[in-house]
Amino acid sequence: MNKKCHQVAARMADIQPFHVMALLAKARQLEAQGKDLIHMEIGEPDFDSPSIVTAAAIEAIKQGKTHYTPAVGLPELRAAISDFYRANYQVDVDPQRIIVTPGASGALQLALSVLINPGEKVLMADPGYPCNKHFVRLVEGQAVNIPVDESTHYQLTQALCLKHWDDQVKGVMLASPSNPTGTLLDETELQAMIAHCDKQGAHIIVDEIYHNLVYDVQPNTALAYSDDIFLINSFSKYFGMTGWRVGWLVVPESYVPDVEKLAQNIFLAASTPAQHAAIAAFQPETITILEERRKAYQARRDYLVAALVDLGFSIHQVPEGAFYIYAGCEKFTSDSYSWVYELLEKAGVVITPGIDFGEHQAQTHVRFAYTTSLDNLKEGVARLRAYFLVTR
Amino acid sequence: MNKKCHQVAARMADIQPFHVMALLAKARQLEAQGKDLIHMEIGEPDFDSPSIVTAAAIEAIKQGKTHYTPAVGLPELRAAISDFYRANYQVDVDPQRIIVTPGASGALQLALSVLINPGEKVLMADPGYPCNKHFVRLVEGQAVNIPVDESTHYQLTQALCLKHWDDQVKGVMLASPSNPTGTLLDETELQAMIAHCDKQGAHIIVDEIYHNLVYDVQPNTALAYSDDIFLINSFSKYFGMTGWRVGWLVVPESYVPDVEKLAQNIFLAASTPAQHAAIAAFQPETITILEERRKAYQARRDYLVAALVDLGFSIHQVPEGAFYIYAGCEKFTSDSYSWVYELLEKAGVVITPGIDFGEHQAQTHVRFAYTTSLDNLKEGVARLRAYFLVTR
Repeated sequence: MNKKCHQVAARMADIQPFHVMALLAKARQLEAQGKDLIHMEIGEPDFDSPSIVTAAAIEAIKQGKTHYTPAVGLPELRAAISDFYRANYQVDVDPQRIIVTPGASGALQLALSVLINPGEKVLMADPGYPCNKHFVRLVEGQAVNIPVDESTHYQLTQALCLKHWDDQVKGVMLASPSNPTGTLLDETELQAMIAHCDKQGAHIIVDEIYHNLVYDVQPNTALAYSDDIFLINSFSKYFGMTGWRVGWLVVPESYVPDVEKLAQNIFLAASTPAQHAAIAAFQPETITILEERRKAYQARRDYLVAALVDLGFSIHQVPEGAFYIYAGCEKFTSDSYSWVYELLEKAGVVITPGIDFGEHQAQTHVRFAYTTSLDNLKEGVARLRAYFLVTR
Repeated sequence: MNKKCHQVAARMADIQPFHVMALLAKARQLEAQGKDLIHMEIGEPDFDSPSIVTAAAIEAIKQGKTHYTPAVGLPELRAAISDFYRANYQVDVDPQRIIVTPGASGALQLALSVLINPGEKVLMADPGYPCNKHFVRLVEGQAVNIPVDESTHYQLTQALCLKHWDDQVKGVMLASPSNPTGTLLDETELQAMIAHCDKQGAHIIVDEIYHNLVYDVQPNTALAYSDDIFLINSFSKYFGMTGWRVGWLVVPESYVPDVEKLAQNIFLAASTPAQHAAIAAFQPETITILEERRKAYQARRDYLVAALVDLGFSIHQVPEGAFYIYAGCEKFTSDSYSWVYELLEKAGVVITPGIDFGEHQAQTHVRFAYTTSLDNLKEGVARLRAYFLVTR
């Protein structure tokens, strides 16, 4: 290997890998040796894509619909997404404002690349989705990670934004429900932050990729409060279409030409069979299946929250949505990163260390994903219980 | 529309849309009114994806293979790409160095994001693929567009690089065959540029997405000359898989971890059904079909080059590959951008203006794509001939 030229751009030092991937590699290695593991680390539904969705993809492929689509996506899909906002939230969103993207990842990249200059700041919650800060870094912006805890429902608030505000702040990233905490944004706070950003010439970017995986309550989309925000959503989570890589970005009307030309240049378009599959995701028969899955997730959450509290984890906020529980493990460790390896090897349970979601209290938190059956969750809890009995 | 906050990042002023898209929108509008048009502007094969490829995708979807893959791609696909280099070029490429990407677009973005710091320069040919300079701009680098013409086969050379070299140059982008000119890189020049970059600590990035669509000659992959380059390829063009969005990037071994973590963060992975489809692209039955298509392209090229010269276009270099002809139209116009609209409306022929590929002599060049049947090409030529007779 010739290393004489090995030199990467400075930004690479600030872009972290998903730490859980190394853990997962270790898990796969142990499994190859015959070890049985319970996976509670995976941010992906255990359900397959709904059969109507896969049938739509197959039909499109058979019809030769495998050529490029417009950069902003198939018109029928943009219209279907617009209909979805009307049906679900009674909110009118012009299909022209809806840009189909290669997953929410593509949407995040478009929004931040169009908006943020080098040196400009984007506020975001810590803990939060780790890629957000990396998308900001990619365009030489500065992510400002604001520590949040149960006192604000693990969400940014107007007061927290003001505390970190200066002239360089050009964006505020929000996620509702949040990954890893599953908590919702307070809608009054959202409105206050929108008003503040409007006044300051800054932009609100809201991630709603788990927005249809919410239990007990029915939150409003942020689009109900403003047409001047950037909103990200995806077919991956609620619609069970992770591997297809299709999501969307809703932008204020005046930004459409800029977002479109950037999409042309950096993606060309999202995968065509995936877009055809996504159109079927909104069919009533699909929604019936998805709503049953949502109830299954809810039952898993209800079981797992209670069981983890019983084991000694601290859960200050019952998550309203997503399929994650962000649990305090301060009773067990002050080094959650090493501890998840210990649990992997000794308890046979895989969970994600807090460090994957930020730095604030990361060493005393872990994330459980209930993307596995209730039986598996019960087995995982039993293994943890047995292991804690031995080690305490 | 609330415009008070409309403010985009400075980079957006330097990122151009594909001008042909506006032309295409106009064409679609005329077609909706009943006008018959011959399309010679489209950078996409007119052939559908081979049936073995589509069957593989359908089988994968039926088997529920629609979940996330590793960020670097399916191991079987990486192995198949490695085998392809061995079979086609007798070159060993470790599968670990092969990163599957969402199209060549994803590969270009990974390479430039990993390598280029703000302010650093990347040399590239003008005319060339327009997105290249935009990927550089996206990470705040500086694209240095070097005018090229028939004297260097429309390619960069060692001498041209030296002429534009300074300490800020960190990358040289090459494409063989080139889009829009279809010309090949001289392999002696390539070796000289590799040696120069090695000495200077700069990086060579070679785009070979049209490399298997070459006629008359059999060029070597740039990977035959160095393991220390970044090489981009795609299933879109030769393999006829445009809309699936799957390509690949070969990197020097020491760069794999950085490229992997960036891929995790900005894409998660390429579309899963598309990756399964791509595995089948290398099967002998598929290659047989693709080689027949290559011969069809060659016949089209042979016809169209002669016909265009006969019409009065200047073609200094018969393109060895891709499916494009970059033709001088100085005999007809000094404003090719307006002229393509004239040809669209008055001759019923759609071609791409030179401005989509750079600034050097752009106003006296247009690009013809022979991604339509020989019959259509003949009809297009007949229309141009008739129109020129009337207007001259």
